Amino acid sequence: MTETLSDIGEFGLIDLIRGLLQKEQVHAPEVTLGIGDDAASFRPGRGRELLVTCDCMVEGSHYLPEHMNPSDLGRRAMVMNISDIGAMGGRPRYATVSLGLRPETGLADIKAMYRGFISELRPFKASIIGGNITKTEHSAFIDITLIGEVETGKIVRRSTARPGDRILVTGYPGQAAAGLRLLREGKTHDNLINHPLIAAFIRPSHRAVEGQIVAQKGYATSMIDISDGLLGDLGHICEQSNVGADIFQDRLPSNGHMKEYSLSQDKPIYHMALRNSDDYELIMTCLPENMEAIKSELASLADTPVTEIGRINDKPRDISLIRPDNSRYKLFPTGWDHFIGEMD
Amino acid sequence: MTETLSDIGEFGLIDLIRGLLQKEQVHAPEVTLGIGDDAASFRPGRGRELLVTCDCMVEGSHYLPEHMNPSDLGRRAMVMNISDIGAMGGRPRYATVSLGLRPETGLADIKAMYRGFISELRPFKASIIGGNITKTEHSAFIDITLIGEVETGKIVRRSTARPGDRILVTGYPGQAAAGLRLLREGKTHDNLINHPLIAAFIRPSHRAVEGQIVAQKGYATSMIDISDGLLGDLGHICEQSNVGADIFQDRLPSNGHMKEYSLSQDKPIYHMALRNSDDYELIMTCLPENMEAIKSELASLADTPVTEIGRINDKPRDISLIRPDNSRYKLFPTGWDHFIGEMD
Repeated sequence: MTETLSDIGEFGLIDLIRGLLQKEQVHAPEVTLGIGDDAASFRPGRGRELLVTCDCMVEGSHYLPEHMNPSDLGRRAMVMNISDIGAMGGRPRYATVSLGLRPETGLADIKAMYRGFISELRPFKASIIGGNITKTEHSAFIDITLIGEVETGKIVRRSTARPGDRILVTGYPGQAAAGLRLLREGKTHDNLINHPLIAAFIRPSHRAVEGQIVAQKGYATSMIDISDGLLGDLGHICEQSNVGADIFQDRLPSNGHMKEYSLSQDKPIYHMALRNSDDYELIMTCLPENMEAIKSELASLADTPVTEIGRINDKPRDISLIRPDNSRYKLFPTGWDHFIGEMD
Repeated sequence: MTETLSDIGEFGLIDLIRGLLQKEQVHAPEVTLGIGDDAASFRPGRGRELLVTCDCMVEGSHYLPEHMNPSDLGRRAMVMNISDIGAMGGRPRYATVSLGLRPETGLADIKAMYRGFISELRPFKASIIGGNITKTEHSAFIDITLIGEVETGKIVRRSTARPGDRILVTGYPGQAAAGLRLLREGKTHDNLINHPLIAAFIRPSHRAVEGQIVAQKGYATSMIDISDGLLGDLGHICEQSNVGADIFQDRLPSNGHMKEYSLSQDKPIYHMALRNSDDYELIMTCLPENMEAIKSELASLADTPVTEIGRINDKPRDISLIRPDNSRYKLFPTGWDHFIGEMD
């Protein structure tokens, strides 16, 4: 018999999770009180600002259980939050995890999900210090709040890009969205689960270490992670910095898997790179003289691909695609809105 | 036409909330970045520990929309979290609010809910610094993470009660649970909404200021807020402190409304006081010589009722009710478990 949440109840599950965390996660001396009291507590580091982000995944809206096992689900939910902290230049430290679960949820699945959370936090010596378990009758949800630290004054915002800045992007945005489409088309048998595009959706990267280094060195004028697509998030930078951008179509990064998918769909590859995306890559802007330093810093780190895709201009919210023949095509920076759908 | 979330979308709602917060909430200079970037940021105070708690309300499991208007719903969700911070001796400072909403949710209701959050945070000069909006097709949910501050070393835990300590409780636990029962029996017409027991459920108190003062003065040996009922939460203190407790039946606090309800239900009033409760009162333990100081401190504050209900003994997890004839009746400290129901 598979043991479920309704067999041990909320208090039983809290004990189980506490035991698992005690045994398997990193214990930072700054955490003065973990799970088991009215609140958790920690001592903030001196000379640090604290960063707080929260992100939620709802079954049905953000994921389907048949597409993702509980461990990958846990990793993905934590990656989304780690990416947000990294995009400010911060180091992830303390997480609270709030779960909405159906009573028939298996305990093995819940443990696997926590191991997914922990595996993503461990490289940062970050830990889960609190949380909440709630009963739900319908869609399960995972809501994580992640607290990070950054040296005072080193935060990199969205609102500080300046005309003349170069625009850089890490990795190959567009892969995860293509992977999700493949999954939705029902192509979920074993060999496709290992398809690189599907893997990009199920087990996305984050670039938090890259974000920290660039912030620490003071190289970036602005930074954002890509969760609304390259164009959508570049739009957030332009809007909040009151600038525009020129994007060179032939510089947009793509790899073999994207090319293959683009051909199979008869869709231009630049469209894949610009639109919907859940790749959690970073967009950075920088002074021209800092571009090579960023590239070599990130290349030495983990061979992270970084591509210069364009430059910031002084026309507020005016984003243009510069075609290979140098003609301009105006782009409208809209992302995926769950309540409306794609807005363009 | 009532404007709904699906009319303006996620990004429209974020703009609307940002505007509302900008205009209506307290702005602390410690908040260096609010809503609108990948994460919010603040500068922690020197010589402070930070407290983190999170609590979630799910429609259907924790509340019914027909019982509570959006403003009261917002207040209640925030009170639950404020109470947890107060029960550690902390001052609430920074909140993130994660909402799961159906597309047809009215904007006026969402605004009313935020005004509910703000009204509870304002007395502490605390503010909402971030959050998340998620689409859900079924039950809505409100998940709040609240960060508080406390002077380093002043945290009051559950695990530090000692034999011989006196047990104090604030207010009249048991009212909210009776109010919820009245609501569930369908007694929701206007004059009943103003019934004191129903008001205790819909607009619960918290004792965060009381908790802060007692912690600051170092008067309490342990403290917890009551969300699982007086007995359930006293059970948490006993379990984690490895002690037991004697409760004097005739000292359990009750008021006229509880007496009336107890008579109408033909149920002993001490049962109401001990069992299910959502009153967010505090249980404190203290050395006998500090009891009067606590009472007078809280009386001078806001006339907060404080009642000595018993004492801590050295028998681990052994909680007894001492009857008026001095006979002992063993109690089993179980609270409400949403996945199992009442466990005794």
